[in-house]
Amino acid sequence: MVFCQGKTTEQILSILRLMRERHATVLATRASEEVARAVQEAFPEAEYNPRARTLVIRSPAAATVVHKDHTVLVVCAGTADIPVAEEAVVTAETMGCHVERLYDVGVAGIHRLLDHSAQLASADVIIVVAGMEGALPSVVGGLVHCPVIAVPTSVGYGASFQGLAALLTMLNCCAPGVVVVNIDNGFGAGYFASIIVKKS
Amino acid sequence: MVFCQGKTTEQILSILRLMRERHATVLATRASEEVARAVQEAFPEAEYNPRARTLVIRSPAAATVVHKDHTVLVVCAGTADIPVAEEAVVTAETMGCHVERLYDVGVAGIHRLLDHSAQLASADVIIVVAGMEGALPSVVGGLVHCPVIAVPTSVGYGASFQGLAALLTMLNCCAPGVVVVNIDNGFGAGYFASIIVKKS
Amino acid sequence: MVFCQGKTTEQILSILRLMRERHATVLATRASEEVARAVQEAFPEAEYNPRARTLVIRSPAAATVVHKDHTVLVVCAGTADIPVAEEAVVTAETMGCHVERLYDVGVAGIHRLLDHSAQLASADVIIVVAGMEGALPSVVGGLVHCPVIAVPTSVGYGASFQGLAALLTMLNCCAPGVVVVNIDNGFGAGYFASIIVKKS
Amino acid sequence: MVFCQGKTTEQILSILRLMRERHATVLATRASEEVARAVQEAFPEAEYNPRARTLVIRSPAAATVVHKDHTVLVVCAGTADIPVAEEAVVTAETMGCHVERLYDVGVAGIHRLLDHSAQLASADVIIVVAGMEGALPSVVGGLVHCPVIAVPTSVGYGASFQGLAALLTMLNCCAPGVVVVNIDNGFGAGYFASIIVKKS
Amino acid sequence: MVFCQGKTTEQILSILRLMRERHATVLATRASEEVARAVQEAFPEAEYNPRARTLVIRSPAAATVVHKDHTVLVVCAGTADIPVAEEAVVTAETMGCHVERLYDVGVAGIHRLLDHSAQLASADVIIVVAGMEGALPSVVGGLVHCPVIAVPTSVGYGASFQGLAALLTMLNCCAPGVVVVNIDNGFGAGYFASIIVKKS
Amino acid sequence: MVFCQGKTTEQILSILRLMRERHATVLATRASEEVARAVQEAFPEAEYNPRARTLVIRSPAAATVVHKDHTVLVVCAGTADIPVAEEAVVTAETMGCHVERLYDVGVAGIHRLLDHSAQLASADVIIVVAGMEGALPSVVGGLVHCPVIAVPTSVGYGASFQGLAALLTMLNCCAPGVVVVNIDNGFGAGYFASIIVKKS
Amino acid sequence: MVFCQGKTTEQILSILRLMRERHATVLATRASEEVARAVQEAFPEAEYNPRARTLVIRSPAAATVVHKDHTVLVVCAGTADIPVAEEAVVTAETMGCHVERLYDVGVAGIHRLLDHSAQLASADVIIVVAGMEGALPSVVGGLVHCPVIAVPTSVGYGASFQGLAALLTMLNCCAPGVVVVNIDNGFGAGYFASIIVKKS
Amino acid sequence: MVFCQGKTTEQILSILRLMRERHATVLATRASEEVARAVQEAFPEAEYNPRARTLVIRSPAAATVVHKDHTVLVVCAGTADIPVAEEAVVTAETMGCHVERLYDVGVAGIHRLLDHSAQLASADVIIVVAGMEGALPSVVGGLVHCPVIAVPTSVGYGASFQGLAALLTMLNCCAPGVVVVNIDNGFGAGYFASIIVKKS
Repeated sequence: MVFCQGKTTEQILSILRLMRERHATVLATRASEEVARAVQEAFPEAEYNPRARTLVIRSPAAATVVHKDHTVLVVCAGTADIPVAEEAVVTAETMGCHVERLYDVGVAGIHRLLDHSAQLASADVIIVVAGMEGALPSVVGGLVHCPVIAVPTSVGYGASFQGLAALLTMLNCCAPGVVVVNIDNGFGAGYFASIIVKKS
Repeated sequence: MVFCQGKTTEQILSILRLMRERHATVLATRASEEVARAVQEAFPEAEYNPRARTLVIRSPAAATVVHKDHTVLVVCAGTADIPVAEEAVVTAETMGCHVERLYDVGVAGIHRLLDHSAQLASADVIIVVAGMEGALPSVVGGLVHCPVIAVPTSVGYGASFQGLAALLTMLNCCAPGVVVVNIDNGFGAGYFASIIVKKS
Repeated sequence: MVFCQGKTTEQILSILRLMRERHATVLATRASEEVARAVQEAFPEAEYNPRARTLVIRSPAAATVVHKDHTVLVVCAGTADIPVAEEAVVTAETMGCHVERLYDVGVAGIHRLLDHSAQLASADVIIVVAGMEGALPSVVGGLVHCPVIAVPTSVGYGASFQGLAALLTMLNCCAPGVVVVNIDNGFGAGYFASIIVKKS
Repeated sequence: MVFCQGKTTEQILSILRLMRERHATVLATRASEEVARAVQEAFPEAEYNPRARTLVIRSPAAATVVHKDHTVLVVCAGTADIPVAEEAVVTAETMGCHVERLYDVGVAGIHRLLDHSAQLASADVIIVVAGMEGALPSVVGGLVHCPVIAVPTSVGYGASFQGLAALLTMLNCCAPGVVVVNIDNGFGAGYFASIIVKKS
Repeated sequence: MVFCQGKTTEQILSILRLMRERHATVLATRASEEVARAVQEAFPEAEYNPRARTLVIRSPAAATVVHKDHTVLVVCAGTADIPVAEEAVVTAETMGCHVERLYDVGVAGIHRLLDHSAQLASADVIIVVAGMEGALPSVVGGLVHCPVIAVPTSVGYGASFQGLAALLTMLNCCAPGVVVVNIDNGFGAGYFASIIVKKS
Repeated sequence: MVFCQGKTTEQILSILRLMRERHATVLATRASEEVARAVQEAFPEAEYNPRARTLVIRSPAAATVVHKDHTVLVVCAGTADIPVAEEAVVTAETMGCHVERLYDVGVAGIHRLLDHSAQLASADVIIVVAGMEGALPSVVGGLVHCPVIAVPTSVGYGASFQGLAALLTMLNCCAPGVVVVNIDNGFGAGYFASIIVKKS
Repeated sequence: MVFCQGKTTEQILSILRLMRERHATVLATRASEEVARAVQEAFPEAEYNPRARTLVIRSPAAATVVHKDHTVLVVCAGTADIPVAEEAVVTAETMGCHVERLYDVGVAGIHRLLDHSAQLASADVIIVVAGMEGALPSVVGGLVHCPVIAVPTSVGYGASFQGLAALLTMLNCCAPGVVVVNIDNGFGAGYFASIIVKKS
Repeated sequence: MVFCQGKTTEQILSILRLMRERHATVLATRASEEVARAVQEAFPEAEYNPRARTLVIRSPAAATVVHKDHTVLVVCAGTADIPVAEEAVVTAETMGCHVERLYDVGVAGIHRLLDHSAQLASADVIIVVAGMEGALPSVVGGLVHCPVIAVPTSVGYGASFQGLAALLTMLNCCAPGVVVVNIDNGFGAGYFASIIVKKS
């Protein structure tokens, strides 16, 4: 995996070349459109997901082994949180997970969430992405018995302080079974979900 | 009303004497047991509520006019939030409101809250008291159409930072119709609910 | 209502189309001029208020029922706070309130405020918008008996920390009857004022 | 589970009685010695662990099913972090996990940690408890492929700001596969580890 | 002047002995009752003001020259702010100023303040002491043309953050002619007022 | 005085027109070059100081009465602090003060400052402008007996946190006789110095 | 070395026994008087320095090699900073350094510091201990060419925020050649000074 | 040395001219490419290092005395930290040190660091540059006996808070022998390393 933010296009390309030699599949996150164009020129097989800002470079031979018996469910509170949720989705899929999405089910309309109780109950790991007050993981954590990974996002304004409010909410979650990753760290959540699934 | 914290017992007594001359009913909040004893010695009619840490001094003649047609519902997330919730209850009752309680319905067990949907829907003003992640007002705010007053409490540990986490959560509440008062300010919430009821 | 900030123009348009089917009136806040142009192309009846950065889409048939007997007064400290105040005004008007404005009455010239004592006294709900030190709600709250909704703004520099100073001031307000919404949240204040008026 | 901090002894006892009726095993955390004495009087079978400040009440019939094939390894940086580590140990054991301890292996003496590479590699889930700079999870996360749960502690002084420094360190962990819980939340880490093990 | 807080009684006594040799008048601030007793034993002429927590040791010969033509007015918002206000009063008086008090005129009851417009207008320097939201200096600063020294106090709870809220309010004061000293620094304000008076 | 930041050019022009009618001299601060051009078109007599970012509009008849017997000394630590220092200079001069400058005398080269001991000793009021660690007012305050007004600037990087470090330094100044204004508030310091001089 | 704070007396004793076997000299810091008594009972040769709160246990045979040609100078701003300064002194001496003290030379009386210019100039490493605004290292750093280690202390009140203000000041020090350790970390400064001296 | 950030190109040029007259070698840091071009036009001998953003102007006659017997080792955690590391390298080299680099050895891959144990052990001073969680200095500090200078960088996102997380980590470092400079202050670290080397 390569975290593109804060690196020059040249640095990214040379890291990708090194990794490409060693691994059948390489994932780059936080890739701007400019970076994506340069990478796709160098690696025509690279797939760019502009919403998730991810690049996946895969050998044609690399048949991804999907863990079909286990489901990672990515839940997301609002429209503006989708880029982070998609980063989690792409990461988990690239690592061979079967992923489902449940988007736009913020706590202010709790019945939209409760309408999907069965889907929540059948998931093996749940990633919950939310900005602003970040209350969704607390509710989801109280509804299920599987591991819940909470991802605060920098979505919000004023007293959200670029995701700090959502981060604190999630760290203080009164439902047990909820852990937290860094603000906007969809990759980290997707990766962690994958290693739980692989353990199973 | 008198806020006792930070004042000496003598200061409190002399303020109470002044107010007693002018008003039929006087409310003192944040009264320690020591203060309560001194006040009850001076004003034998003073009622002390040790959970709410409130003192109410009322003229025998002062028949409290209760606004029976309107209900202030005080909702509280956890056992440790009860003192702040009770301060809100006593304040609203002292100001003539009809008050109902709905305690221990934190978001980690959302169905306990949803079981009381009818009670929530019939309230005219709702006060929601919560510490730790403070997510309850977001859920309540999404379920009702009446004004919701959110009270963060200093209940919690670690990254709750003495109520800061709950405060930020409530300020960033994505449900409209939710306003916030200071950390542990049950009095402020009860007072505000009362003036809404009086307007009706 | 749609909060435009952080959403793409396409996302906003598709949300507006969905909401338009269900509601006679739709309000969009934090709409940039670019968003406004795109929305007005799709919905020619949309009215854009550039100061408030709001878009209102209303069915010709939708005669707004105005609650004429009740007045929401929007008070604002300085010139730079006007955009947030206007967001509150547009929100409350769209929800059927009779709204009055009292602008540029900051606490440093207290007599400008006191000259409007009658207008303050006759309001049913007051929204007070202020940046920098955010002291205006404390003074207004001490002058009236109706509910006061305080809106801190991000106006200021240095130790205002993008509205944090005003927010803390308002949360610590020593006048009872004052509640607070998020920094720059004119919409939240206007919405809350409307549901109080509707309760009356 | 019962979180004792912030509750009165009476509240704790009445909650325990309720839970005891429904569950074969009950765990209480953050129990002071005073609380422990009162609980042991009411429930003579209660086991108190003074280092972890936990109380476990177990039915004689309740044969704990231990997941022997999976190991939860609790790693701890310094002597002062042991109480939090022990809270994690007791929680995971109470929930039926096989738990191992690896204590006093802070990053300032990296070879003490590396001497246990085999133990680290064979664990199924690792809980890493650290205060002060909280760097241990980053190193452990880089050495293993299993899920790592990082627990910042309030151990430290000065710029540790009661665990904030360790918390931020862990959230910014550059090793993937590391998630974080609240400061001093040994219980949360133990619980989360258990549900991963149960999934396996 | 000696700042007693954080020093042992012995250190204070030895510093006072040194200063006493060189100066006709010595002022010690933040003196606890225990320190006061020890100092009065050593210096029987020491006057202790328990509200201000100050000790003044003066030579019988030291006739304090009072600047009678100039008035330092110490204004204070609430009862709990009085100790800090008194520290300012004692400091300015010890340095030879004519001092007047105007206490308990917080902004929530603005008319109590305005009733003393003449006294405010005739002052040469005004010290304004306020905790909680700390809004009083903004109002006073708008009413007068003389220098205003604002003293935030640690009075308050919750989001007052031990005086931080009041401090930020005062630093962002939109009235010109207002400067700020440290939280609870009544001494600093009294001293600064004195050197302005001496310049005149 | 007009604070231009956060206002549109049109708002600034209309405020200036109003003020121009009432006052012989008008000062506008934080004026960008774009604002300056627009103002100078409307008021050809307006003088723009690009370093201080100030505009002064003065009636030809308005002979500024200069208080020649008193000197305001503006001291500044580094080159990057000069814009704030100049804002103080222009403000004090516009208000009729005799102003002297002592620039580039930061504490890291204490002898440059001490070389000007006589100039420091002869000043009636001193304004000290400093960013980064903001230590200069502490040293100056210890060298003189006149009032010292400290102005923290947002100059610095990293842990200067946009002037917060300098602000805290100045508030904790152990030299008595030092007061503080908001970060980058050269105007406030110049204004305050002027009213002290006018009192004299 | 053993850091006693946060450890039980038994833990400290067992760590000391282990270390005593391996090392001729052992240093324990942050030792309360209670801890000291217990340690001196177990190790009668232990020397307790109550001001520094340190315990030194030394083999009679352990002739401390003093690096006589190099001087570590410990400079301290105020009386209340002495305990931290002494911790640095004891640490450096225990590690074999020749240490000199220069106490009570805060920046508010810069000439007291300058009177010792020769002593400053002849030092090989300087440790500067200061609380409140923490400005002393900036001045010292500008006077000398040797390494300066700055130690912020938690001495102060209000906006010193338990040493945060001094810490930020020192991190933003504009004099080159100054580095910083944690708040109150006299040990760290003494240790670092020693390894510089040993390198020489 | 000249710190270019926050200064105009003209100010930089005039400072460089002054310094050039007095010193054989001048170093300018934080020089943008635009500044670099202007300086190289005025001083054709100026060498610009775009990664380090440094300019070095050296007299042809100025034979740099290199302290060959002592090595300053600059260690850096990730690719994005290189600019700060290079600033340290250029500074130390300009001051006559022999410098070695050890880049891209972050704690998440501890064996890359341990593979260079010999290089670490043979260094005389080590500068460790790291962003995100900033854990590298703790590990390095535990491996070596020489002075370690930790430089936090602003590299990271979310809860890294522009380098605050790394800064706190390094200040709380449990390995002795580690000191800290400001965020991104490669110059300060390089300078401090040089004066240690010169002392030797």
